[in-house]
Amino acid sequence: MQNFEYYVRTKIIFGKDTESKAGGEAAQYAQRILLHHSGGHAVKSGLIDRVKTSLKNAGVEWVELDGVQPNPRLSLVYKGIDIVKKEKLGFILAVGGGSVIDSAKAISVGAVNEGDVWDFFERKKTVPQSMPIGAVVTIPAAGSESSNSCVITDERGPWKRGINYECIRPAFAILNPELSYSLPPYQTACGIADMMAHIMERYFTREPHVELTDELCEGALRAIIRNARAIFSGGEKNYDARAEIMWAGALAHNNLLGTGRIGDWGSHQIGHEVSALFDTTHGAVLSILFPAWIQYNIKEDTPRLARFAEKVWGVDGAFYDPEQAAKEGVFRMKHFFRSIGLPVSFAEAKIDAAKIPEMAKRAVKFGPVGNYRKLDEKDIAAIYRIAAE
Amino acid sequence: MQNFEYYVRTKIIFGKDTESKAGGEAAQYAQRILLHHSGGHAVKSGLIDRVKTSLKNAGVEWVELDGVQPNPRLSLVYKGIDIVKKEKLGFILAVGGGSVIDSAKAISVGAVNEGDVWDFFERKKTVPQSMPIGAVVTIPAAGSESSNSCVITDERGPWKRGINYECIRPAFAILNPELSYSLPPYQTACGIADMMAHIMERYFTREPHVELTDELCEGALRAIIRNARAIFSGGEKNYDARAEIMWAGALAHNNLLGTGRIGDWGSHQIGHEVSALFDTTHGAVLSILFPAWIQYNIKEDTPRLARFAEKVWGVDGAFYDPEQAAKEGVFRMKHFFRSIGLPVSFAEAKIDAAKIPEMAKRAVKFGPVGNYRKLDEKDIAAIYRIAAE
Repeated sequence: MQNFEYYVRTKIIFGKDTESKAGGEAAQYAQRILLHHSGGHAVKSGLIDRVKTSLKNAGVEWVELDGVQPNPRLSLVYKGIDIVKKEKLGFILAVGGGSVIDSAKAISVGAVNEGDVWDFFERKKTVPQSMPIGAVVTIPAAGSESSNSCVITDERGPWKRGINYECIRPAFAILNPELSYSLPPYQTACGIADMMAHIMERYFTREPHVELTDELCEGALRAIIRNARAIFSGGEKNYDARAEIMWAGALAHNNLLGTGRIGDWGSHQIGHEVSALFDTTHGAVLSILFPAWIQYNIKEDTPRLARFAEKVWGVDGAFYDPEQAAKEGVFRMKHFFRSIGLPVSFAEAKIDAAKIPEMAKRAVKFGPVGNYRKLDEKDIAAIYRIAAE
Repeated sequence: MQNFEYYVRTKIIFGKDTESKAGGEAAQYAQRILLHHSGGHAVKSGLIDRVKTSLKNAGVEWVELDGVQPNPRLSLVYKGIDIVKKEKLGFILAVGGGSVIDSAKAISVGAVNEGDVWDFFERKKTVPQSMPIGAVVTIPAAGSESSNSCVITDERGPWKRGINYECIRPAFAILNPELSYSLPPYQTACGIADMMAHIMERYFTREPHVELTDELCEGALRAIIRNARAIFSGGEKNYDARAEIMWAGALAHNNLLGTGRIGDWGSHQIGHEVSALFDTTHGAVLSILFPAWIQYNIKEDTPRLARFAEKVWGVDGAFYDPEQAAKEGVFRMKHFFRSIGLPVSFAEAKIDAAKIPEMAKRAVKFGPVGNYRKLDEKDIAAIYRIAAE
């Protein structure tokens, strides 16, 4: 087991009607804040109005910035930074999914540091500080509500780049599972793939003797799979299933499940290039690429992938034919993703296989990706080709 | 699933040689601190000297108070409060196991609040604030290093009473698994029973639909059981096994595993009366009473106890004869505790069964105990009698 520090100071406020606490929590940080959201469903559903009432009740004033899109754009981040500086705001409240929260995180970095915020994403310099932010979560998916990471797309490239800093972890996160009832099924499914990927990226490690976190990862994946099936078999408004998924989404990415281990993250890296070129939803890219990544690794580390097949997907027979068991794990995983409406191949998501060489080249801009297995341009192209089969 | 708040702001610093960071962490809170420990093994092993070097290097001065015993005493807490007030100290660093950390927590409450600190434990008033504390953990057991609870014994009774407040959660906890190499086997075993009990108290809930935390609880218990066996089969200095146990001990009691559910805590309550009268180590009381408590509940909630037997103890056949499976779970649990040198009956721990009526009466001083099943005086006596068999 590796030495580690684990310090998640995000206060989780979980359950029914908890959005009414947003104002009181925000008031602990500032009297004037940026209210950041997409302007879409959160407005139509009345959530933004409920949050505003809560802010009013707590004596908090706000300036509103909506328009966040999936794969949140750098241009809106720049706009947010200008507003925060001009209006002298002291806190950012994100109401939405991972895109809104990530956009808020990027604004929080740009608002209190000199220079171009994109330089931090291009790794030209490191982030010394940020403005505190809070989140009211509407989409269980990215886990951004209690994570230290943030991914932004510079549409001029397009480039999709991520940063990881302790200071950008939200001060509080409000999670009301009821807010996810009205998500379109495809978005629910993409969120499920995303949180599963966050766990699997940590699960696949070369670090031996991390049994406790192995058990926690496998248990969380089983709980997600079972409750996803409950939601997709007529349980759209099954509070408990939605609640399990929402709590799992936060735990999947606050690094509890990564303590003492070095995760892989190759699938995320090579997925970013697909999203950047085709604007494919992050979760759908992962439902395509993670099974392909696993298949590419079966011969490389058969015992680990056989264990994964048995413990997470219930495959028997791993003792006698581990390679076949591992393959069956991939088969079941793809079947599960399909069963909740996700693509498992490039063709299904209208991703043009002709772009494989270009995407593979872009993926290694900063060198090989992945820690469980270092992937060079050739490896990445091979994984893309499996996904294109 | 119940609504919940989850806010564990303890910074975990985990791994080899991490005690060297104690000074730097403490310096963030005060320049003059109370250094609190038992005066026993932590001194002989050289740990206290290493911690002092770290404090010196960080420019932190300390006043020392040693002498903490298992089932930490109120008299020493009073002494600590006097010292902190007289010397105007601003932080307490506990170096030791749960007893030392709990003693430090009680001092931290008494140091900044008027009146007799025992009144808080007797529930005459609530704790409004406390002084920040930190911990260097030597015994993986109580999980006090990142918990909000504190148990103290007033030797004038004797009464053993606990409090739970967010403010007493340590600001940081340093966990170096190597520090547990030299623990006597009995103490290692008692710690293992204690952390397992912390998980089981949360696991046994009447709250339906808490699958994610069910999975996390079961996985953590399996990891503890496997690594306990590794330590007790010649792995006293197996770093990885010690590390799994130490991290599990902290996670067992920071309430991650209790989110969304209402735990039982009856076994802890009825165990406190045994410790109070016989000064039996907390972990040994639990290895005796938890199997007895489960046995008492088999007819009350057979499906849950059959599941526990299957998922945690690997018992087959729960579908066909769940009651028998549940019984076999208790059998395996007792065998496991015996295999690591713990008592599983009153006789083995020299607890006089003649005191059962008195202990049962004392246990209900504040009314029935337990949430999974409310235990009155008659129930408690029945569980004690099972333990006396």
